[in-house]
Amino acid sequence: MYNKALIVILLVLVSTSLCTPATGQTKIDGSQLWFTNTELNAETIKACPDYIYLSQKSETYNIIKKELQDNLNTLFNKDVKVIKKLKPGSLCVGTTAQKNLTTYFSDSELKELGNDGFIIRTVKNNNTIIIANTEIGALYGTYHYIRLLQTSKDDLVNLNIVEVPSYDRRLLNHWDNLNGTVERGYAGHSLWQWDELPATISPRYEAYARANASIGINGSVLNNVNASPDILKTEYLNKVSVIAKVFRPYGIKVYLSVNFASPSVIGGLSDANPKSADVIQWWKDKAKEIYTIIPDFGGFLVKANSEGQPGPNDYGCTHADGANMLADALQPYGGIVMWRAFVYNPKGNDRAKQSYDEFMPLDGQFRSNVIIQVKNGPVDFQPREPISSLFGQMKHTTLMPELQITKEYLGFSDHLSFLGTLFKEFLDTDTYTEGRNTTVSKVTDGSVFNDSITAIAGVANIGLDTNWCGHHFAQANWYVFGKLAWNNQLSVRDVAKEWLMQTFSHDEDFVSSMSRVMMESREAVVNYMTPLGLHHLMGWGHHYGPEPWCVIEGARPDWLPTYYHKADSIGLGFNRSSTGTNAVAQYAEPLKSVYDDPKLCPEELLLWFHHLPWDYELNNGKDLWTELCYRYNLGVEQAQQFEETWNTLQNKVDMDRFKEVQQKLATQVREAIWWRDACVLYFQTFSDRPIPHELFKPVHKLEDLKKLKFNMTHHN
Amino acid sequence: MYNKALIVILLVLVSTSLCTPATGQTKIDGSQLWFTNTELNAETIKACPDYIYLSQKSETYNIIKKELQDNLNTLFNKDVKVIKKLKPGSLCVGTTAQKNLTTYFSDSELKELGNDGFIIRTVKNNNTIIIANTEIGALYGTYHYIRLLQTSKDDLVNLNIVEVPSYDRRLLNHWDNLNGTVERGYAGHSLWQWDELPATISPRYEAYARANASIGINGSVLNNVNASPDILKTEYLNKVSVIAKVFRPYGIKVYLSVNFASPSVIGGLSDANPKSADVIQWWKDKAKEIYTIIPDFGGFLVKANSEGQPGPNDYGCTHADGANMLADALQPYGGIVMWRAFVYNPKGNDRAKQSYDEFMPLDGQFRSNVIIQVKNGPVDFQPREPISSLFGQMKHTTLMPELQITKEYLGFSDHLSFLGTLFKEFLDTDTYTEGRNTTVSKVTDGSVFNDSITAIAGVANIGLDTNWCGHHFAQANWYVFGKLAWNNQLSVRDVAKEWLMQTFSHDEDFVSSMSRVMMESREAVVNYMTPLGLHHLMGWGHHYGPEPWCVIEGARPDWLPTYYHKADSIGLGFNRSSTGTNAVAQYAEPLKSVYDDPKLCPEELLLWFHHLPWDYELNNGKDLWTELCYRYNLGVEQAQQFEETWNTLQNKVDMDRFKEVQQKLATQVREAIWWRDACVLYFQTFSDRPIPHELFKPVHKLEDLKKLKFNMTHHN
Repeated sequence: MYNKALIVILLVLVSTSLCTPATGQTKIDGSQLWFTNTELNAETIKACPDYIYLSQKSETYNIIKKELQDNLNTLFNKDVKVIKKLKPGSLCVGTTAQKNLTTYFSDSELKELGNDGFIIRTVKNNNTIIIANTEIGALYGTYHYIRLLQTSKDDLVNLNIVEVPSYDRRLLNHWDNLNGTVERGYAGHSLWQWDELPATISPRYEAYARANASIGINGSVLNNVNASPDILKTEYLNKVSVIAKVFRPYGIKVYLSVNFASPSVIGGLSDANPKSADVIQWWKDKAKEIYTIIPDFGGFLVKANSEGQPGPNDYGCTHADGANMLADALQPYGGIVMWRAFVYNPKGNDRAKQSYDEFMPLDGQFRSNVIIQVKNGPVDFQPREPISSLFGQMKHTTLMPELQITKEYLGFSDHLSFLGTLFKEFLDTDTYTEGRNTTVSKVTDGSVFNDSITAIAGVANIGLDTNWCGHHFAQANWYVFGKLAWNNQLSVRDVAKEWLMQTFSHDEDFVSSMSRVMMESREAVVNYMTPLGLHHLMGWGHHYGPEPWCVIEGARPDWLPTYYHKADSIGLGFNRSSTGTNAVAQYAEPLKSVYDDPKLCPEELLLWFHHLPWDYELNNGKDLWTELCYRYNLGVEQAQQFEETWNTLQNKVDMDRFKEVQQKLATQVREAIWWRDACVLYFQTFSDRPIPHELFKPVHKLEDLKKLKFNMTHHN
Repeated sequence: MYNKALIVILLVLVSTSLCTPATGQTKIDGSQLWFTNTELNAETIKACPDYIYLSQKSETYNIIKKELQDNLNTLFNKDVKVIKKLKPGSLCVGTTAQKNLTTYFSDSELKELGNDGFIIRTVKNNNTIIIANTEIGALYGTYHYIRLLQTSKDDLVNLNIVEVPSYDRRLLNHWDNLNGTVERGYAGHSLWQWDELPATISPRYEAYARANASIGINGSVLNNVNASPDILKTEYLNKVSVIAKVFRPYGIKVYLSVNFASPSVIGGLSDANPKSADVIQWWKDKAKEIYTIIPDFGGFLVKANSEGQPGPNDYGCTHADGANMLADALQPYGGIVMWRAFVYNPKGNDRAKQSYDEFMPLDGQFRSNVIIQVKNGPVDFQPREPISSLFGQMKHTTLMPELQITKEYLGFSDHLSFLGTLFKEFLDTDTYTEGRNTTVSKVTDGSVFNDSITAIAGVANIGLDTNWCGHHFAQANWYVFGKLAWNNQLSVRDVAKEWLMQTFSHDEDFVSSMSRVMMESREAVVNYMTPLGLHHLMGWGHHYGPEPWCVIEGARPDWLPTYYHKADSIGLGFNRSSTGTNAVAQYAEPLKSVYDDPKLCPEELLLWFHHLPWDYELNNGKDLWTELCYRYNLGVEQAQQFEETWNTLQNKVDMDRFKEVQQKLATQVREAIWWRDACVLYFQTFSDRPIPHELFKPVHKLEDLKKLKFNMTHHN
């Protein structure tokens, strides 16, 4: 009796250990990203092909073959053979160059796939074909197929999937400096080992390329937009060339940020005037050199006349003059210029208006290989902003959204905040510039305008940390950016679930609980940092903790929180309505009227557009002050809820990641309280009203919080 | 030592008892309404006049004198004398007929006061004058002055207050039947003792008139809009005349609801065709009779061709034909017709559109003494509705709002729900029909249109219950209606505080805590009954508890909840957008676009205008189903918070009212849970999704709730 019970216990232990995610390593450290968990849904078991058929050979096909073999064999625990002649029960991967595959597809549907699209279709003889116009398209189809096998709840024996990306260029921007630091990077130093290159090639380069390709990212700007001119030196181009070679079979092009003053700084010219023949020639020569070294080089990203960077304005020229000059240099080789619209100067009365004011007059003046890269919001990657008013308004210029994956303003890699909801809210916002349903998605992906280029960029959150992103859950932001760049209509809740399944577990309770946490997490950050449309309340320089009181003598006013919150004895918020700076006039109707009127303005943007009295009555029966206290505290409660939820899931996750995330969540709760107390107590010095006692009592004293100095050592 | 301590304790006890509100009665039963508490703010002590100067005599002046003497003597605990010749230190009350008073005022400012306005001004010799063009205006000024003494925190020694009402006619509608019942009344039987009248005059009539006059109400429609023709019989007119006599010195006119079929039912005519000469003559004769008996009779309120009531449509005539015929009969005597726009028939696909569809074609066809009485929302006094689209759109017809003070759909007199926020939200809503800032207030109070009449009506919550309204806090809804009818720009939070101070206590903690509760209370009801724009989920007939499932064979579909919530496996809500019934098209831009687009539509009206999928993603990161569960539970938590707050205030309120309110709040919590569970569990049968475990677990089972039969015996 005793023995039998023991055996049962042992069996349970054995089967439990069998059920833990197979990862090929003892410590699960996050280094495998969304390739970590290789559970298979029971429903997909019968979908396993008997053979893999690849008629072609190439570097990319080798990747396809390896991914399929590794994954199918791991997933199904069997040995799926690669065959050279088609047999029933095969998974066939190929391009339209292979005529024996194209018979199952119409010419028109293949044409619509473009460069990167693919079709996965089950045809006769139980064969499934992944077809594309290019090998890279076939690679995307392969990753898609593997993901389906692993995460889909659907029957996978009769597939007919057509995927075409929303944007042609799906880019990561790395704000990596040549000295190995990463601006606004919170996951260790730069991936790019410039000192060792070109001789030594870190295995991380390929792992990075694979991760990107698996979600459809096809370009990387390797260096910081605050660009060192050195990147264009031949020495560095040779290093870049090595990275480009690793990326190439994964379909990833390299791009570089360039310093507009390069011709004078490294070229020996007296200036960088875009009207100067010498300067023009210098760039032409440089372009030629680049393309000699990197034949498929993507193009330039330029931050000009912004935050101290040089630019065409230095020579009395416009942004168009500067961008076109570079575009002409790259044009013979098919390169593009991504010119950032992130400009503002301290003299304006409203930083939120300046990008629009400066770029709108240039509409229509840019070359067809120039694309204006516009941050999602009019200020700078705040937890919540309205959309930049340029979207949809610059009708004769191609625009691309710039999103920030790294969380400069949302708690670095310390806070769990899934940005899928932020990205989607932005993409789904209707600009109304061409009537109803001309969302940011549609005005940037070519659905509305006849764009010569379509592109989207995300500022990467990737570094040398073992888990790549500093926080296990921050990987999801890289993932969701890629997925939305591929398909801007996706449900980000589905993406979150899919990511959780691939990264952690298929356990239903785990996936539903943590996807709820992820979906709510960005709003929690908004609540405890900058609710109701507040913004830019963070500390000077580091942008981490709360410093709504921050005043620094001689500082640019538009770098100080008081410029944005405008708290006074009357109320709170920035009057950008028609009675204030009239930033609302930059939006199309009805957005203009909606934002202009506090009664119509969405509450989540209320103090972005309006300065409202402390006793302003909201429709829910609360006054502004009470609502502010309520939301700050709600953010804390949400963070606490996240921590509690995670703690209930201990037996569903490997212990290493469980503990690491647990520690981060505890930090997040502590810092949510810090934010809440700091902001509420500071604003209370203006409102002169009590914190409703049923809400909370501050843990800290304002005076103590004001003395806190943030320790930056654990960040770049 | 011991003795001293005892003395201190005794002193504390004595002083505590001295601080309890003086009420002149042992049991505080609510019968004294907002005259209950006669504490005086310490700051106003020095404002006590030494004398009262009234040069005139009349019934109204007698009231003024009595109110001032009683109140000043009680408030200041001294004997303030009434003098006949002006002395320094007097409070003078008079009209512009008294030339010795008018010297302190300009002609133009006096002219602007109209019939009901007043000025309170401190002039030389420490005299304060309350002046008006009419005795009634002086009475309003008197009540205002007393209220200021009691509740103001300002220095009252240098007053200069000018008050002119927003609406000329500020009416209560009593839905009282001649048999003594009250339709949708939850405070006992009717005040009007028709059986005893005209011989016996209840003291309640004067108490009612006084309460109304103190907040500026100047008209009462005595009988139900579902009117018995009998009210126009001479027998009843003689009874009405007695009530009118009691009301007259308080400035309150009586009005009657009339049954359109009266000429045939009580007049012996063959029909009530408004084009029939006999019918026209009958009404002319009746009007003459009425004005002989009641010379200052206000006019008729008519519910015609609505919910089975007779009307001009019965004879192929329009609402305008009917209204004008009555208006012509009343015109020689200065009477008005208030013609209700509350019409709908079961054939339409959207009840919310019908009032607009039926009345808009008649715009401009009404006599100048007709005013169309329009309910605040397009359906029927739900916890939240958008505004009726008629406001601002009928530009050539005078409109008056009809609000419901009695809480037919908000928990009767069992739930604490302060309607000030509902009324104010409605009045503050911008119609945009004449451009920005043409709010409902402004399009109805004469600011925008050149209205021949301005008026507002509230359906009374008054009955024979000792505390008048069934719930001590329901008195506040009568009070706030009156205050907003007087001044539609008031802060309802201030009104709530003022009411609390006059009704309960000046204690700061009490006033701030309970005003917060009051301000949040309507939103709590919205949350636990009909969040996110849901409506009409209540039980058949009684309109009390939740019955979203209600199906009754052969019933009018537009009387059933399913007509409104349209829950199905896909989602929830009524598609009134341009892809649905297009009710949004009845609103002016930008409201039309805002309501039409789920991304712009205020979340609190989302399911009023849209049918959205269960997984529809809201900007806060929650899907529709989760948000629905969240809001229902939030409503319960709010109700619980109200109960907790009240319980902390036990030592600040008299025990009788404390216990009575406590019991009501416990009921409210219980019934909030009932609503939450019923609605969430019912909708779950469509959504097929779990209730997020971190939110709540239902207390009830759906099957049990469906079996519940509501016991109506304790209501009319």
